[in-house]
Amino acid sequence: MATMQDVARRAQVSIATVSFVLNNTKPVTAATRDRVEAAMAELGYRRNPAGSALARGRTDIIALLYPALQRQLHATATRFFTSAAERASERGFSLVLWPAANEAAQIDELTRSGLIDGVLLMEVQLEDARVDALRRGSTPFALIGRTQDPTGLPFVDIDFEQTVVSAVEELVARGHTDIAFVYDHSGPTTLHAYGAIARASRTFHDTLAQSGLTGTSVDCRENPRAGRRLGETFRDDFPDVTAVLIMNELASPGFTTGLRRSGTAVPEDLSVLSIVSSETVASMSDPELTFMRAPAVELGRLGADAIIDRITAPDSALPHTLVPCELVPGSTLGDAPAR
Amino acid sequence: MATMQDVARRAQVSIATVSFVLNNTKPVTAATRDRVEAAMAELGYRRNPAGSALARGRTDIIALLYPALQRQLHATATRFFTSAAERASERGFSLVLWPAANEAAQIDELTRSGLIDGVLLMEVQLEDARVDALRRGSTPFALIGRTQDPTGLPFVDIDFEQTVVSAVEELVARGHTDIAFVYDHSGPTTLHAYGAIARASRTFHDTLAQSGLTGTSVDCRENPRAGRRLGETFRDDFPDVTAVLIMNELASPGFTTGLRRSGTAVPEDLSVLSIVSSETVASMSDPELTFMRAPAVELGRLGADAIIDRITAPDSALPHTLVPCELVPGSTLGDAPAR
Repeated sequence: MATMQDVARRAQVSIATVSFVLNNTKPVTAATRDRVEAAMAELGYRRNPAGSALARGRTDIIALLYPALQRQLHATATRFFTSAAERASERGFSLVLWPAANEAAQIDELTRSGLIDGVLLMEVQLEDARVDALRRGSTPFALIGRTQDPTGLPFVDIDFEQTVVSAVEELVARGHTDIAFVYDHSGPTTLHAYGAIARASRTFHDTLAQSGLTGTSVDCRENPRAGRRLGETFRDDFPDVTAVLIMNELASPGFTTGLRRSGTAVPEDLSVLSIVSSETVASMSDPELTFMRAPAVELGRLGADAIIDRITAPDSALPHTLVPCELVPGSTLGDAPAR
Repeated sequence: MATMQDVARRAQVSIATVSFVLNNTKPVTAATRDRVEAAMAELGYRRNPAGSALARGRTDIIALLYPALQRQLHATATRFFTSAAERASERGFSLVLWPAANEAAQIDELTRSGLIDGVLLMEVQLEDARVDALRRGSTPFALIGRTQDPTGLPFVDIDFEQTVVSAVEELVARGHTDIAFVYDHSGPTTLHAYGAIARASRTFHDTLAQSGLTGTSVDCRENPRAGRRLGETFRDDFPDVTAVLIMNELASPGFTTGLRRSGTAVPEDLSVLSIVSSETVASMSDPELTFMRAPAVELGRLGADAIIDRITAPDSALPHTLVPCELVPGSTLGDAPAR
């Protein structure tokens, strides 16, 4: 492996000059810099990672912990991820996909490796052992999501409460009084037990209660076929329901397919409002879904900023940022049918 | 920041013992190891990245270069990515998403940082400046995809040729003689100009020619709405076509929606065979698409193995691996209608 000496000899400069070029510690002429860089390229000289970044005690790498192997990356999660990576890159950091399970031991292993400057955690659960592990350690971290009590933790998250309140108010204003909330109930025993589901579900029932109404919870696994099966029998199983709030992106296009096949007119017989979704999936549905867009791009940037700020300015205020989803018109929302 | 001395003092062992524990260079008793690790945890000792991995001249990090910011991660690309990350993790490596554009300069910058051991390149173009940059450097690399002439390059790729031959033979065997190939033609001026499109398109026309037939190329952008618009006017625009081969995952569910809306019966009037796709997207279509599954999981593993083998056994044979897509039955493939 080529050394700094080799580079200096080839470029016909001193070792000190090579060091100046490598570490930008003293100005050198453009011609000298070019000669040193050419020599490094020709010799395949590999800058010691312990060089510039590590001399500052930093690697400029952030691990994004996402249980990608247990949980498919949705269109929405994907957009979040690429947005965070882009923002990190703008600020001179790289984002590592760490295909971790939700296990505290993996956190310890990762943070003790010394190869990363910070951790960004996704799919946070209400009680999350990974957060406890991060609190015990000294590696900067930030959450996309919130634990039950996020006081004292740096986080950015979707404002599920505000999103569901807006969605329910929209449906109630259109005269709907029998509303169902469709989501994957398998949460409590799996990775899905993250705060999103718990917060959205509780807000759904609370908001209806304030209008003197009672809502129905309906279970549906997160895939298009489960959505279609639900749609095919929905009117038989829930004859009084006139509006569905669905928080299940992958099942949502299948749900409208099932409704159509069973002769349920959307939105004449049944309104459908998909929340925490994306344009790509909403436009695969027929009719196109009215949906509330997950602020994935914005949250990705905010998440990257949150962890980078923890690294570069550890004394700055902890971010506690919530961003609601925004309504995007489609063809599945209408007034309640006359009875 | 805690030093090795601090750890040694707290654990009441010699600095040499701390080093043995850190680098696994000599056996120590379980009790001593526990004491050293407890001291490291209490002090928030951060292992110098220049420690174990770098002492071997390695960081055990691989960069997966994917132009994620220019190009949405499809369901298929996503599965590839998580599979490669999982395989890398099994072999003790981490996979970095490097949100790079297709620019050779970014390759130089990345490989010269010294922070990564290898590069895995996706969306390879027939003529690809990034590959030239990698050949000039000394960082191990492997391709997911192929350049025009991949001789001397390590690669794994979908066998687009075999996939298209199988697909066309399937359609011809069912009596179809007027077949269209739908894909995104914007390739030549954008990132889409990767080898996949070029190889598939050429093979489509060559295979038909061998049966004395002529095929039709049809352009469609990669999104559900473009697919729907195409489907809505397809029979009017191409009245003689009885079968469509579509290599455009995001547009495919919209295409069947458009066909249904325009009164085109699938597969009675028109057969549709989606290639290089996934179960998730195929099952969002109504009727469910007959498709040829991209071997994303298998290729992800093979890609990770390819680059890790280049790093750990640089003298081993270069991988030249092609994996065809496999037919998955659905409801959109039928015999040619009688004329």
